Amino acid sequence: MASQREATVLLPETALTDFCRCVFSQLGLPKDDAAVVADSLIDADLCGIASHGLVRLPIYVERLKAGVVAARPEMHIVRESAATAVLDGGNGMGQVVSRRAMEIALEKGRDQPAFISVRASNHNGALGYWAAQAPVHDCIGIAFTIGGINHMAPWGGAEAMLGNNPFAIALPAGEEAPVILDMACSVAARGKVNVAADRGEAIPEGWCLDSDGLPTTDPLAALQGFVLPLAGHKGYAMTVAFGLLSSMLSGAAFGTEVTHLYDDLKNPQNVGHLFGVLPVTAFEDLAIYRRRMDKAITEIRGVRRAPGVAGITLPGERERLLRTERRQNGVPLARGTVAGLRQVAAELGIETL
Amino acid sequence: MASQREATVLLPETALTDFCRCVFSQLGLPKDDAAVVADSLIDADLCGIASHGLVRLPIYVERLKAGVVAARPEMHIVRESAATAVLDGGNGMGQVVSRRAMEIALEKGRDQPAFISVRASNHNGALGYWAAQAPVHDCIGIAFTIGGINHMAPWGGAEAMLGNNPFAIALPAGEEAPVILDMACSVAARGKVNVAADRGEAIPEGWCLDSDGLPTTDPLAALQGFVLPLAGHKGYAMTVAFGLLSSMLSGAAFGTEVTHLYDDLKNPQNVGHLFGVLPVTAFEDLAIYRRRMDKAITEIRGVRRAPGVAGITLPGERERLLRTERRQNGVPLARGTVAGLRQVAAELGIETL
Repeated sequence: MASQREATVLLPETALTDFCRCVFSQLGLPKDDAAVVADSLIDADLCGIASHGLVRLPIYVERLKAGVVAARPEMHIVRESAATAVLDGGNGMGQVVSRRAMEIALEKGRDQPAFISVRASNHNGALGYWAAQAPVHDCIGIAFTIGGINHMAPWGGAEAMLGNNPFAIALPAGEEAPVILDMACSVAARGKVNVAADRGEAIPEGWCLDSDGLPTTDPLAALQGFVLPLAGHKGYAMTVAFGLLSSMLSGAAFGTEVTHLYDDLKNPQNVGHLFGVLPVTAFEDLAIYRRRMDKAITEIRGVRRAPGVAGITLPGERERLLRTERRQNGVPLARGTVAGLRQVAAELGIETL
Repeated sequence: MASQREATVLLPETALTDFCRCVFSQLGLPKDDAAVVADSLIDADLCGIASHGLVRLPIYVERLKAGVVAARPEMHIVRESAATAVLDGGNGMGQVVSRRAMEIALEKGRDQPAFISVRASNHNGALGYWAAQAPVHDCIGIAFTIGGINHMAPWGGAEAMLGNNPFAIALPAGEEAPVILDMACSVAARGKVNVAADRGEAIPEGWCLDSDGLPTTDPLAALQGFVLPLAGHKGYAMTVAFGLLSSMLSGAAFGTEVTHLYDDLKNPQNVGHLFGVLPVTAFEDLAIYRRRMDKAITEIRGVRRAPGVAGITLPGERERLLRTERRQNGVPLARGTVAGLRQVAAELGIETL
């Protein structure tokens, strides 16, 4: 796709990492914290999840500068048992809080299922990044979070009340790479509606409703309206359930309590997450589990293909292959995203990309 | 809908319960076991989930008669810890095994997250029925299972390798009823394709692929082909993840190991499930949790509605309202379903409906 190539700039991962770390260090984050935020954002771009990559850096910066996200949060455990904890993230960056939560989950989840609920956190990037930490320790990782903007209406409604709440599941394998599901509950990401609006193109039917809750293919009307859940009432049920799981076990915001990631720079978002860890060895011999996972993966990959299909991929495989390729050849960023990064550099007085 | 009314027979719940219990007792199930199978099937019809209701009774009977499902299974715990167990269902009815698994989960999950993986089970009816047992004990219930027939292809594939694997999440509330998500991963149930084929009608685009893996609106071609996952690759990722969760932690069948619920009356299915329980009080004060759940539910139900929408329902609410109504007024069953029940009665020599 020539147009995509023209609209993107290819940058080496290392340059992006240096830049990002510098930005967040400059804004007061401890070195390790700046590194994890950088890694989360850049990994998303490496994996082709541009919606959760460096396009988010400017709003992260803006919120830190506005003081509505804490650069050096005082996290504390509100409640704890052998297999559970409630973590108050002290309004820190979502990545900084999520790293701590997953550390606790993996520590408590060595021999038993462990679940950590989180409040007073923020946008934590692509959710699969966090679930994917469990397979490294021979655990299945499960993650839920609240989306940072209410732009979905309840099924049949015409009022924004729900985020496009994602969930992620990561299962370790043997020789094969982990299977990683990472998805939100809408038909299409709202970012795609923005792109259509920029280009003056209609959006497909079934993506969005206008502000009255009626179907629309006009991207401008859609941006005043709502993103539709995937598969109708099923996606609605999913986003409700994932949102409640993310917020009700920790005191995090839900529904009308959710403020807007981009538009509200005064109130902390009180974002909630729920992280779970299931250690394989609590249920099955590791060698058997690994062998069976590899068999399942090989079988799926080897099925007869539909005409014109080049290959079958497992959930998370496309992202993994892209990551490898882009580490070698560079990370394609939209020109608009690069412009945003350069503006941040100018504002912070740091070396530009 | 007059046609629907004509095509259905209204029967009282009590008559159905007596009939079902009699059927399964006749086939050798202990009284309590016959009762739980009956309750699971009838509850699905009460709730409007006809696909998992009494329409399944004839195949349950056939499998019991063929000896490919055990009427009096010897269940045993293969592996166990304070918060986990692996239950071998001894090839018992899925409902009998799932009841035992949920009992263990709720016992172990009083103060901590508990997960029970299951093997050597069978079709366990509507999955939400099992997750919904957790809220009664102030716990969140999570359930996964393998679908009993491989009629989905991996994304891009043209070979049946995956079931339409469902998952369910049930969250207790306060004054309000629990929020219950219960869904499988396809765009449309395969039963709807059967109905279209019977009527000689085309099916909507996007429901199915033919046996080459190409899109089709011909129900007969679709029945030779595959059901499409909801939301494309997202539904594919979901059914893979839920299938692996249901089978890899217990030694249950996955992929090519899965036999056909209807067509294979020789080999036990070795169906797997995974049940999880999260006790609310491990994370949050119960009173606060309940108040916040009720607030969330009330807010969602009260949003401004799109034109023509009579009311907003929470996940599981439609089913609950239907159950109440049908308990009073009778359960509508398709004539074909009733004919199937009467044939079973004749074969077993028991009093017909």
